[in-house]
Amino acid sequence: MHYLDHAATTPLRPAAREAWLAAADLTGNPSSLHGEGRRVRAVVEDARERIGAALGADAAEVILLSGGTEADNLALKGLWWGRGGAGRIVTTAVEHHAVLDSAKWLADREGAELVEVGVDSAGAVDIDAFTAALPGATLATAMWVNNEVGAVQPVAELAAAAAAAGVPMHCDAVQAVGYEQVDFGASGLTTMAVSAHKIGGPVGVGALLARRDAPLAPLLHGGGQERKLRSGTVDAAGAAAFAAALEQVVAERDLERRRVEALGDRLATGIRDAVPDAVVRGAADGCSAHVVHAVVPGASSEAMLMLLDAAGVAVSSGSACTAGVVERSHVLQAMGHTPEESRSAVRFSLGWTTTDGDVDAALAALADAVARARAAGRMR
Amino acid sequence: MHYLDHAATTPLRPAAREAWLAAADLTGNPSSLHGEGRRVRAVVEDARERIGAALGADAAEVILLSGGTEADNLALKGLWWGRGGAGRIVTTAVEHHAVLDSAKWLADREGAELVEVGVDSAGAVDIDAFTAALPGATLATAMWVNNEVGAVQPVAELAAAAAAAGVPMHCDAVQAVGYEQVDFGASGLTTMAVSAHKIGGPVGVGALLARRDAPLAPLLHGGGQERKLRSGTVDAAGAAAFAAALEQVVAERDLERRRVEALGDRLATGIRDAVPDAVVRGAADGCSAHVVHAVVPGASSEAMLMLLDAAGVAVSSGSACTAGVVERSHVLQAMGHTPEESRSAVRFSLGWTTTDGDVDAALAALADAVARARAAGRMR
Repeated sequence: MHYLDHAATTPLRPAAREAWLAAADLTGNPSSLHGEGRRVRAVVEDARERIGAALGADAAEVILLSGGTEADNLALKGLWWGRGGAGRIVTTAVEHHAVLDSAKWLADREGAELVEVGVDSAGAVDIDAFTAALPGATLATAMWVNNEVGAVQPVAELAAAAAAAGVPMHCDAVQAVGYEQVDFGASGLTTMAVSAHKIGGPVGVGALLARRDAPLAPLLHGGGQERKLRSGTVDAAGAAAFAAALEQVVAERDLERRRVEALGDRLATGIRDAVPDAVVRGAADGCSAHVVHAVVPGASSEAMLMLLDAAGVAVSSGSACTAGVVERSHVLQAMGHTPEESRSAVRFSLGWTTTDGDVDAALAALADAVARARAAGRMR
Repeated sequence: MHYLDHAATTPLRPAAREAWLAAADLTGNPSSLHGEGRRVRAVVEDARERIGAALGADAAEVILLSGGTEADNLALKGLWWGRGGAGRIVTTAVEHHAVLDSAKWLADREGAELVEVGVDSAGAVDIDAFTAALPGATLATAMWVNNEVGAVQPVAELAAAAAAAGVPMHCDAVQAVGYEQVDFGASGLTTMAVSAHKIGGPVGVGALLARRDAPLAPLLHGGGQERKLRSGTVDAAGAAAFAAALEQVVAERDLERRRVEALGDRLATGIRDAVPDAVVRGAADGCSAHVVHAVVPGASSEAMLMLLDAAGVAVSSGSACTAGVVERSHVLQAMGHTPEESRSAVRFSLGWTTTDGDVDAALAALADAVARARAAGRMR
């Protein structure tokens, strides 16, 4: 199988696997005071330090939790409640559902006023509109790299605008850590969400980076772990594995970015050759190195996906699916695609195990898959 | 080291370790439609089925999440919001902080009326008072086995009273699964929290069992996984490891209960001999097989804990600690102990790796540790 769905999840790295096992074989709750507990606590604090260092954050700014979705939920709801639970939330039209649906819940249930700033046809947030919406807002949020199309947002400018307006700003950096220079301290952000399994760590592990002065309230109450911002026994093995994966990613990032970008460029060129009327977005179009996205008029996402799967190539539509049916992408619609086009996309996402052979296989299978998907579409 | 803190966390079982590795080595997001994703989805659904079967629940009633704390938070806040977010919450004075602090947050922030039903000197909930508080309540909650003193609650009676009053009832069964006959379907409960790492699964994994008709709203929003009740990529490896640990626990429960109870009885008797004025609670006093709890007048929890640790015996105070200082136990105070006694407790908790040698070591170290702790107390 040629796996080109690394943005959904990427294989566990051997270093992360080893770190997980070494920590999981220790006995002791990191909150316990005895020697066993202190030993596990030391593993947690070592991992926290390394996760912080890899992301330009102090250890104290790292809140360990169960993944990117929880991090986004904690940031949005926590900043909302932490700032008194009233007012306006500035977000973008292309956020991950963990951000978008948290914001919508705050609007529906808590009366938040929601401003969803639009994007251009490349998926880049309108900085002027974002800036104009900020004054007096309770919080702002914008992702770093879009999970569907790979669009890289001008996070530095958006964060600077939020800082100038005195508005705490969150960023979902889940898809950014692998290939962008992510430096939390330099970013000017208030909070930032990261996930382990998108970079070769285990599923169920992530962190919210939060400045010490972030006006953040907890979402999960209980034992008061993680600066009282996230209760629940801290997962030492998960943290150690996350740290191991992250250090490797950061150490190899420049080289890997060039390697993956070259593979992606070849893939994008090959898609354009095979399907001339496809709208293809890749690194050369300002997107992240690891995502090549194609809108293929007349071919449904699920048909292309299934046909490529049958040909041994694992890809995604990029957007959510329910019961096997791919939903219209809110991202593509925000970028100006028609509703029909927004169900006609395929996302190839590359990663640390991707080879030339994977790209070859995808290109070998694509033309036939598109032709068949289009034929199926015409028959309906 | 003689580890007698299994109620805090118990060593990872080899079967769980193997199941984790086998699943973690698969590539694919269980929400992905391609073959890789479907293979991981099959691992999740197999684990869900087995977790349900081990606990008397249908697979569809198993919501996978990050642990007991999240399960308690989802139950309390989810039932509260799911039932319209108004009214009364009936709980007990001896709940785990994940329940207690969730309920308090709902009182402080959402205006919930909180009724904390008291317990007797053995820690058992007052059924009459609980029943009297139920009519018209929004939700009720009571734990199965108390995490500090091991008191086993009359869950069947409490759940029957809640059902008769038409009140959805949650139960924190985190400490019950190992040694009590836990059957969710037969229990009459609406929701029930369980955790993997308390029974030999990994940290960061748990489940909320929820009847299909549970009026439950989600706490984490996003991709809509887990019946839209818990978003975030489902942790297949964690679920598989949880299922493996749980199946082993349930298969060996009767034998293990007798084995651990005999060890605990010997420990309780030895403590009474060594410290005649201690108030000791164990299985013979209606508590769970795995907990032996002692209130030792004149000796602080942290002093006993540290001295036992120095003697190679890992135990806990049972209650929360902040910066190395053990807080007064709300459980012991509810049971009628003085504030001073509520900081003078030591909890020995036994588990699947506990041997006669561990009990011997604890008893060999105890008298001296108590004498020294008392001397230190007199000097202050």
